Amino acid sequence: MLLRLSSLFVRTLREDPADAEVASHRLLVRAGYIRRAAPGIYTWLPLGLRVLAKVEAVVREEMVAAGAQEVHFPALLPKEPYEATGRWTEYGPNIFRLKDRKDADYLLAPTHEELFTLLVKDLYSSYKDLPLTLFQIQTKYRDEARPRAGLIRGREFIMKDAYSFDLDDAGLAAAYENQRAAYQRIFTRLGLEYVIVSAMSGAMGGSRSEEFLTPTPIGEDTFVRSPGGYAANVEAVTTPVPPALDWSHVPAAHVEDTPDSPTIDSLVELVNARFPRPDRAWTAADTLKNVVVALVQPTGEREVVVIGVPGDREVDMKRVEAALAPAEVEIAGEADLAAHPELARGYIGPAVLGPNATDPEHAVRYLLDPRIVAGTRWITGANAPGRHVLDLVAGRDFTATGAVEAAQVRAGDEAPDGSGPLELARGIEIGHIFALGRKYAQALGLTVLDQNGKAQVVTMGSYGIGVTRVLAALAEAHHDEAGLAWPAHVAPAHVHVVATGKDPAVFEAAERLATELDARGVEVLYDDRPKVSPGVKFADAELFGVPLVVVVGRGLAEGLVEVRPRVGGSSEQVPVAAAVDHVSALVKGLLAERG
Amino acid sequence: MLLRLSSLFVRTLREDPADAEVASHRLLVRAGYIRRAAPGIYTWLPLGLRVLAKVEAVVREEMVAAGAQEVHFPALLPKEPYEATGRWTEYGPNIFRLKDRKDADYLLAPTHEELFTLLVKDLYSSYKDLPLTLFQIQTKYRDEARPRAGLIRGREFIMKDAYSFDLDDAGLAAAYENQRAAYQRIFTRLGLEYVIVSAMSGAMGGSRSEEFLTPTPIGEDTFVRSPGGYAANVEAVTTPVPPALDWSHVPAAHVEDTPDSPTIDSLVELVNARFPRPDRAWTAADTLKNVVVALVQPTGEREVVVIGVPGDREVDMKRVEAALAPAEVEIAGEADLAAHPELARGYIGPAVLGPNATDPEHAVRYLLDPRIVAGTRWITGANAPGRHVLDLVAGRDFTATGAVEAAQVRAGDEAPDGSGPLELARGIEIGHIFALGRKYAQALGLTVLDQNGKAQVVTMGSYGIGVTRVLAALAEAHHDEAGLAWPAHVAPAHVHVVATGKDPAVFEAAERLATELDARGVEVLYDDRPKVSPGVKFADAELFGVPLVVVVGRGLAEGLVEVRPRVGGSSEQVPVAAAVDHVSALVKGLLAERG
Repeated sequence: MLLRLSSLFVRTLREDPADAEVASHRLLVRAGYIRRAAPGIYTWLPLGLRVLAKVEAVVREEMVAAGAQEVHFPALLPKEPYEATGRWTEYGPNIFRLKDRKDADYLLAPTHEELFTLLVKDLYSSYKDLPLTLFQIQTKYRDEARPRAGLIRGREFIMKDAYSFDLDDAGLAAAYENQRAAYQRIFTRLGLEYVIVSAMSGAMGGSRSEEFLTPTPIGEDTFVRSPGGYAANVEAVTTPVPPALDWSHVPAAHVEDTPDSPTIDSLVELVNARFPRPDRAWTAADTLKNVVVALVQPTGEREVVVIGVPGDREVDMKRVEAALAPAEVEIAGEADLAAHPELARGYIGPAVLGPNATDPEHAVRYLLDPRIVAGTRWITGANAPGRHVLDLVAGRDFTATGAVEAAQVRAGDEAPDGSGPLELARGIEIGHIFALGRKYAQALGLTVLDQNGKAQVVTMGSYGIGVTRVLAALAEAHHDEAGLAWPAHVAPAHVHVVATGKDPAVFEAAERLATELDARGVEVLYDDRPKVSPGVKFADAELFGVPLVVVVGRGLAEGLVEVRPRVGGSSEQVPVAAAVDHVSALVKGLLAERG
Repeated sequence: MLLRLSSLFVRTLREDPADAEVASHRLLVRAGYIRRAAPGIYTWLPLGLRVLAKVEAVVREEMVAAGAQEVHFPALLPKEPYEATGRWTEYGPNIFRLKDRKDADYLLAPTHEELFTLLVKDLYSSYKDLPLTLFQIQTKYRDEARPRAGLIRGREFIMKDAYSFDLDDAGLAAAYENQRAAYQRIFTRLGLEYVIVSAMSGAMGGSRSEEFLTPTPIGEDTFVRSPGGYAANVEAVTTPVPPALDWSHVPAAHVEDTPDSPTIDSLVELVNARFPRPDRAWTAADTLKNVVVALVQPTGEREVVVIGVPGDREVDMKRVEAALAPAEVEIAGEADLAAHPELARGYIGPAVLGPNATDPEHAVRYLLDPRIVAGTRWITGANAPGRHVLDLVAGRDFTATGAVEAAQVRAGDEAPDGSGPLELARGIEIGHIFALGRKYAQALGLTVLDQNGKAQVVTMGSYGIGVTRVLAALAEAHHDEAGLAWPAHVAPAHVHVVATGKDPAVFEAAERLATELDARGVEVLYDDRPKVSPGVKFADAELFGVPLVVVVGRGLAEGLVEVRPRVGGSSEQVPVAAAVDHVSALVKGLLAERG
């Protein structure tokens, strides 16, 4: 392959696009790989499409090697299968919905569990047909509330989604491990560092799920790791429930005047001054903070709920949302509070909440962090401005409607499995695997006859890789200030030949070099633009990110060309006669670095 | 490639699907290539996907060879660009429309002229950047009123669409010819017979357009050919306008009682009996038939119009629709007629129509076939039941609001270019090329600076191939009663190895043969199913349509396997030791038949 820049459909930009917050977005647009068509919706230009094809090829090869068979489903699908599993409703405003000319309801599919289930039901009927794993590489849609970061959170994007079908739990476990191993090979081949973390199954359902995250400070996901090997998405971290405490020695709760103490800090200062504790000072951890949120169900139904956490921790809205899926969770607004005059802003306490209220059936639901076990003793609001209650004991003086994983996870927290203190990091989710179990097969009636002629509900797994997001993650992992810097096996070309100056002999030599490399199977991007300065050409080469740059210029007079890697290593002068052999060998070496 | 039928995700059907009218639809479903997901929306199974990939590869290779550069646009697009060209409205109910969560209007694109225009505008600004041809292979959507014939008229389908950009008319002409030639190579390589016919540009606009049709009786398009080389879609046939006639000798028009003559036949019989013509009998060609139709504009606006044609020809609704695009045309209904009491059913005449009416501004528009030139003399309705007018002369006694190509084209009609009598045939449209001119560039402001620094509006062409439809057309062209019969270069595999019986030695030999062919680069489908009868295996082989079938069975005892082509040729017994060489050579020969 030989692409000449004089005719290649590309234009580089010197300025960052106004809407680009992250490097991959900024550089993919500036280097002319992608172009925004609408919020979260992108057009692929020739260079971008080449990288995308290479990423897709790696994913496809490993899927086939793992025994998965490729199919292809439509993106435009009728409502009915998604209604049968409840997801038509659960997705709420997150999917694109439309009607056809006959007023039938359709959606643009965000994922295809239902359709794969129905297809297997359509074709297969016996245990002998299983195990089976199918996959597709296909365009998916999500009507994201906040599309952002270019390809990282888009509304139209490419996914590889695979689905396994097994007769029993052991089969599902094997299929899950098989896909998990394929994912490890894929990300290793792509040159993408990854961490496998426990995850929430969320709206997808199922018994077990793990995410593949590529660590990067710009990632939307926060995950934790312990020295002992625990790793989880922060939303999936479970808080070890402490044992209940004996409350027999705790004095009765007493309400006190605490003027001007609507914040935790002001409260702690006040109680230390007015009600000092003999053994130690009060801290924020002694207070019970009650936060008012609104749950918005996919149906649009809105419910005000109060969440109680120890005062030294924030409520993590993403953790709450994961815990209460498919509802979306917002901080309560003025209207929510106005509808509940019993909630005294800044001084909310358990007495008016959930089972503690005088009319529990109509009271706001009260969900508590698992740390607030029976016997723990709290300073909290007394439901009147300027008043707090002290020595309020969980289990004795108040209870909750239920528990919720709501409190922020902090570095240094103990891992749930006791494997040591957690550290926190951020990452981009590049893959997600689910042991779905029988949820979809049950809802859609996918059964096969077992050895005894008995109908058995099939058990399924679902395995996704965001292909376009992986490309963005690669750009995040492989770039510098000057531009992109692709690993050779996903780069749009292997070698970028730059002819500088005006000497026709230079252009002839460069053309010959490019042609001969092409004949050797090396993919060449050749900057043959006649009236462009060397500075612009070098800047473009850095922006494009092809791994090897060969400059044919002034040195040609001495029979030399310059060969330099896009990143690392140093440039070398190579005799022009040896350049084809030398560069071919370098390319071969770069490509051999990964399978 | 070696696919084993024991694990391949496929099931063949012995029965035709209920909704399948044509062979390609019937056989692609029965052979397990595709599966219906919704009306006009299909899922691709592994065998179908393999054929699709091969068809796509041929299209892509020839596009690249023709100098076109590949890009990829989203399917989900905002309304605005389509509003700027008027197509948001013109497409009426034929496109899928939706709103996102912010209530912004989107569509699922049926074609991408607007977006390509805007992309080139975004990147390019100088005449030096041109000529340019871009293409994509991408999923498109049309909300067809009547999706039919499986992949032939679907609602979600794959298109190759290319767009050329030139500074001047000569450039556009060259780009058009270049794509035209590429299309000829594509269809030749695919083994698809084609005819290039003049076509209507329709809603697309532009100065010139041609369709590539593959002749088949099940085609939706009718086209004409003359011995002298004229060829056109029947909708694009123009009627040579005869010269005006001298009417000085024609007597004045006279209204006559013609009871019970609401049809042309009854009218001709009656006038021959009551008003015989001295020189010859009256025929249907002497009558002027006025047909009431309703135009439905994309906005939904409905208008009753009367179309006049010689009584010996039917009104061809598809020709009318093409002539009056983007309106859709229907035969007028009861409500339409009730709204126009002046239209006396069966006896409608010019006097109440268009400019001939007493209140022309509010009269129904009257459109006439081009044959009805000044001086022609007609028997037609007198706008009262049982009354006709004779000797009514066009130009003297009545005129029209306008002309319309409405009359049916018949075999034997003279070609518009005088190249002889037309013959009619049917075909499937597999490609359509348009010299668009400046319509889109003008509407969206795509200009470049010319050599003199002056802004020039770019001129464009647009070139489409229905990739999924081409696959169906291939199935139409290559099948028999027993199943599909693919040309080797698009078949899902080159060789279908069938192991018959129960002898383990047979299965071992077949496995070895399949593996060795695979090692030689031959694509093998291997029927290794252990408990399936030879009859079922042979029937499946015929249904799948792989070009060479190799049977390993009883003959193995004598050291022989049977090699037979799926169609034509005869079977031969080949020594098993020579089979790999022999079959590889046959495959090479089949593949060499086309580029």
